Amino acid sequence: MRIDIISVVPELLHSPFEASILKRAIEKGLVEVHFHNLREFATNKYKQIDDYQFGGGAGMVMMIEPIDKCITKLKSQRDYNEVIYMTPDGKTLTQGDANELSLKENIIILCGHYKGVDQRVRDQFITREISVGDYVLSGGELAAAIVCDAVIRLIPGVLGNETSALTDSFQDNLLAPPIYTRPADYKGWKVPEILTSGNTPKIDVWREEQAYKRTEERRPDLLED
Amino acid sequence: MRIDIISVVPELLHSPFEASILKRAIEKGLVEVHFHNLREFATNKYKQIDDYQFGGGAGMVMMIEPIDKCITKLKSQRDYNEVIYMTPDGKTLTQGDANELSLKENIIILCGHYKGVDQRVRDQFITREISVGDYVLSGGELAAAIVCDAVIRLIPGVLGNETSALTDSFQDNLLAPPIYTRPADYKGWKVPEILTSGNTPKIDVWREEQAYKRTEERRPDLLED
Repeated sequence: MRIDIISVVPELLHSPFEASILKRAIEKGLVEVHFHNLREFATNKYKQIDDYQFGGGAGMVMMIEPIDKCITKLKSQRDYNEVIYMTPDGKTLTQGDANELSLKENIIILCGHYKGVDQRVRDQFITREISVGDYVLSGGELAAAIVCDAVIRLIPGVLGNETSALTDSFQDNLLAPPIYTRPADYKGWKVPEILTSGNTPKIDVWREEQAYKRTEERRPDLLED
Repeated sequence: MRIDIISVVPELLHSPFEASILKRAIEKGLVEVHFHNLREFATNKYKQIDDYQFGGGAGMVMMIEPIDKCITKLKSQRDYNEVIYMTPDGKTLTQGDANELSLKENIIILCGHYKGVDQRVRDQFITREISVGDYVLSGGELAAAIVCDAVIRLIPGVLGNETSALTDSFQDNLLAPPIYTRPADYKGWKVPEILTSGNTPKIDVWREEQAYKRTEERRPDLLED
C-alpha cells in the first residue's frame, strides 16, 4: 500500500510515522508513506498557498492551483484508488471504513488547514471526504495520521499477532471486555477470580458477558445496528 | 493550562507539538505540555511496563504499578482537574467536550497502548475516559494529540483571529458553508456569483442557507439535537 499525504505543514506529521507500529510497518515494506509540502507547488514568488475568502469573513482558504498541481503530478505517476480530503463535515470514520481502506493500493490524503480548501478542489478532485469526529482541529494533519494508523495496523503482517486486531473494540460491534495483568493483588485491588481460574471456556463466557454489559452501559447505539 | 501526557512512546508525539498552532500556543506561554515516559516508572530491571493478560488471549496489557507511580508523582506536585484515559470505549469526544476541557487548569492524559491498561488503573485513577471515534488505533498517543489540538486552539489568544473558531463546523450544530478564494475563475470552474457581489447581507443569508443545506444532506443527526 502507498499513501501520499499532501499538507502545508508536513513536518507536523513526522514523529507519528517514526515510532512504534507505523514505523515497523514502513520498515517491513508493508506500506509506503510519502509527504508532499503544498508550498512547493505554489505558483507565485511568495510561495502563497492560501488567500482570503470571497465574500469576506475570518480565516484563510487554501487555493486550488497548488493542490491541482500536486494531485495532477501524483496521478501522472500512478493510479490512485482514492483522493481523500480530511474535513470535519466529511463522513465520520468507522472501523468498517478503516477495514475497507486497508485493501486499497494507492491513496492520496489531502489535509485541510486554516478554514479548509476552496470548494472547487472538493468538487473536482476529491473522491471521499472523511472526518475523524465531531470536533474541529487546527488542521487535517492529525486526522490524516489517525486514518493512517487505523488503516495501516489492519494490513496483514503489520501487527505481530494477527488475532490481536480481531479482538479489538468495534470489530464485532462490541466494546472490549476489561483486561488485567500481574500482579493479581495490587494494594488490595484484586483481579476477578475467574481470570486466574484456568477455566478457559468459563473465561470466554465471562468475557463475552462483560463485553456485552460494557457495550450496553456505554454505547447502546452499537447494539442497535 | 498545563497538560501532562503519559505514554510508553512519547517520542511519537513530538512533531505535532512542534509545528503550527500548537507550537505557537506553547511559545506564547498559553499552554504547557509535558511528556512522561512510562518506562521511567518501571520497577524491575527489564524496565517492564506491560505483561500478558490474565485468562489468556493475544495482546499485552499495561501494568498498574508504573502508571500508579507516575500519576501519584504528578499529583504530589499540583492538583489536577482531570485524569483522562484515551480508550476506544470511552465517551466519544465532541466539540462541547473540547470547549469544556479548554477551561481546565491542569489535566493528565494517559495513553493506552497495546491492548490497553489494567482495568484497576481505570477504576482507581481515571476521572474521564475519552474516545476520539469508533475505530481502533495502535495507541492512545494520536488520540491524545487530537484532544490537545481540539482543546488548545480554543484557549483565548491561541488563534490569531478569535472569531475564527466561532465560525467553525459544530460550534452552532451546523456544518460550515462552502468557501472559495481567488482566482474567481480557474479552468472554467467559477466561484458562485453571490460571493463576489459585495452584498454582505445577502452573502450572510446565502451562507446560512448553504450551511443548513449541507448539514441536512450530510449530517441530519446534528439538526435533531
